[in-house]
Amino acid sequence: MIRKQVVLAADLAGTVVFAIEGANAAISAGLDLLGVVVLSFIVALGGGMVRDLLIGATPPIAISDWRYPVLAFTSGLVTFLLHTQIAALPASLLTTLDAAGLALFAVAGAEKALDFRISPFIATLMGAITGCGGGVLRDVLLVRVPMVLVANIYASAALLGAAVVVIGRRFGYPPALAAVLGGLVCFVLRVAAVYYNWQLPKIA
Amino acid sequence: MIRKQVVLAADLAGTVVFAIEGANAAISAGLDLLGVVVLSFIVALGGGMVRDLLIGATPPIAISDWRYPVLAFTSGLVTFLLHTQIAALPASLLTTLDAAGLALFAVAGAEKALDFRISPFIATLMGAITGCGGGVLRDVLLVRVPMVLVANIYASAALLGAAVVVIGRRFGYPPALAAVLGGLVCFVLRVAAVYYNWQLPKIA
Amino acid sequence: MIRKQVVLAADLAGTVVFAIEGANAAISAGLDLLGVVVLSFIVALGGGMVRDLLIGATPPIAISDWRYPVLAFTSGLVTFLLHTQIAALPASLLTTLDAAGLALFAVAGAEKALDFRISPFIATLMGAITGCGGGVLRDVLLVRVPMVLVANIYASAALLGAAVVVIGRRFGYPPALAAVLGGLVCFVLRVAAVYYNWQLPKIA
Repeated sequence: MIRKQVVLAADLAGTVVFAIEGANAAISAGLDLLGVVVLSFIVALGGGMVRDLLIGATPPIAISDWRYPVLAFTSGLVTFLLHTQIAALPASLLTTLDAAGLALFAVAGAEKALDFRISPFIATLMGAITGCGGGVLRDVLLVRVPMVLVANIYASAALLGAAVVVIGRRFGYPPALAAVLGGLVCFVLRVAAVYYNWQLPKIA
Repeated sequence: MIRKQVVLAADLAGTVVFAIEGANAAISAGLDLLGVVVLSFIVALGGGMVRDLLIGATPPIAISDWRYPVLAFTSGLVTFLLHTQIAALPASLLTTLDAAGLALFAVAGAEKALDFRISPFIATLMGAITGCGGGVLRDVLLVRVPMVLVANIYASAALLGAAVVVIGRRFGYPPALAAVLGGLVCFVLRVAAVYYNWQLPKIA
Repeated sequence: MIRKQVVLAADLAGTVVFAIEGANAAISAGLDLLGVVVLSFIVALGGGMVRDLLIGATPPIAISDWRYPVLAFTSGLVTFLLHTQIAALPASLLTTLDAAGLALFAVAGAEKALDFRISPFIATLMGAITGCGGGVLRDVLLVRVPMVLVANIYASAALLGAAVVVIGRRFGYPPALAAVLGGLVCFVLRVAAVYYNWQLPKIA
């Protein structure tokens, strides 16, 4: 019971963080109010929707549970109204929150895929898609090459975190422990990658 | 019975209007014949397909009922063949027809979502997605920021029209009345927004 | 039994060819290692995933059968490691392999749609989507107008090959014969179109 509420709280927190980021991206791109709330919705819930469509969990939780879209739209609206204050927040805070959101979504996505009896390898992928899918859709709508495909370690951190969850569950760890370990791995790797500017290899 | 035929006729009319617009956009972008008919199909049926995937109505009506794709492809082909004549039509006629198509699709999309027992708030969203989704896919394929995210009141009109349908049904209005009211709200708002150049707020 | 193994072998061969192409496109676009393997996955399996979502075959085979994603990722990784050697291959070899992959996917896509009792006209479309969908997703992610919408005869070859399969099955041909005929039509038409630079009509 308590665990379920912790999971829900984490999921909703991740939704708020990603919705704020979506709104910020939309404001920077010069979109109007509707564009801002739409991007909040897509960045916050797009990854989970793609995962749910792929694992056959329709309608996706993002539209079957009204709390998610209402929270995403509200976060977008508040960001629009308070944009001056939010733009003044230090970048390091936003990066840290984003890494936390990525970790929450990667863990939640892998867990949901396992619950739907998806194989371990694919469940790991689904974790990464849950964490990164919203950002890919944002970049497609704003006509940019998706950041996760070119930038420093982001999807890789989500993949690794999701893998820890999947492997932990495979070895019989308590679900809560596997989730915390996976989330920490993703979060620490992502923050360290930004801080030390780690990059994946690339062919010049 | 009669109502069902009116709904089908409205749906097919909307398909033709949006297919012609898709073909026009493809011709302007320099696509070849295949690109033209593909864009007709996507603009006319893409929104409904996304809705059907999200509410779990697979296979989407756009591919399970052959009349829709055949009509979309045929409209695209005819537009390709008669492009000189169609390009000479007054812009105001195309805008009016587009507003009518938007209204038809927003109403039909909200109704279908309600039929699938989707909650009122999400059914409103599904109406807007049905009306605007095809245009978003068109802009993604033509590598533009989706018009609905930046331009004047378009998705907002679809949202409002769909909301009228959903609220009307909630308050026990006859379905036909709710549909006509919702469609009128969407159509009038969209046409007025173009005429008076109404815009949503934007952060400069 | 033997037929099933031939079909599987053909499907896996097409996956490898398209994964290599996806990796090449990602390397040319300056993506990092993760971007390379993601594009391999998407180009190889994206078309089939869209088809499976549309015909209601969830979870898509590309994620329910681990061999497909593992093969796609491995092909992408090998292409990344051997990029110098692969870049030195003659363009005509790559074009021929691509035409073979297109033929394999168009035939397999049409057959799967028929197995799911999709109508003949739509099954033909599904064949084309299976063959071309991965390339469209690649172009969307790399922010280009999809090649199949502007370039010479590519999707048309897939459509025609799929149509031959569907019509052949309709007239009671043995499935293997229909598949071979459809594949040959697609392959020969595509190779000839490249060789003779055939184009579809376009409005200047």
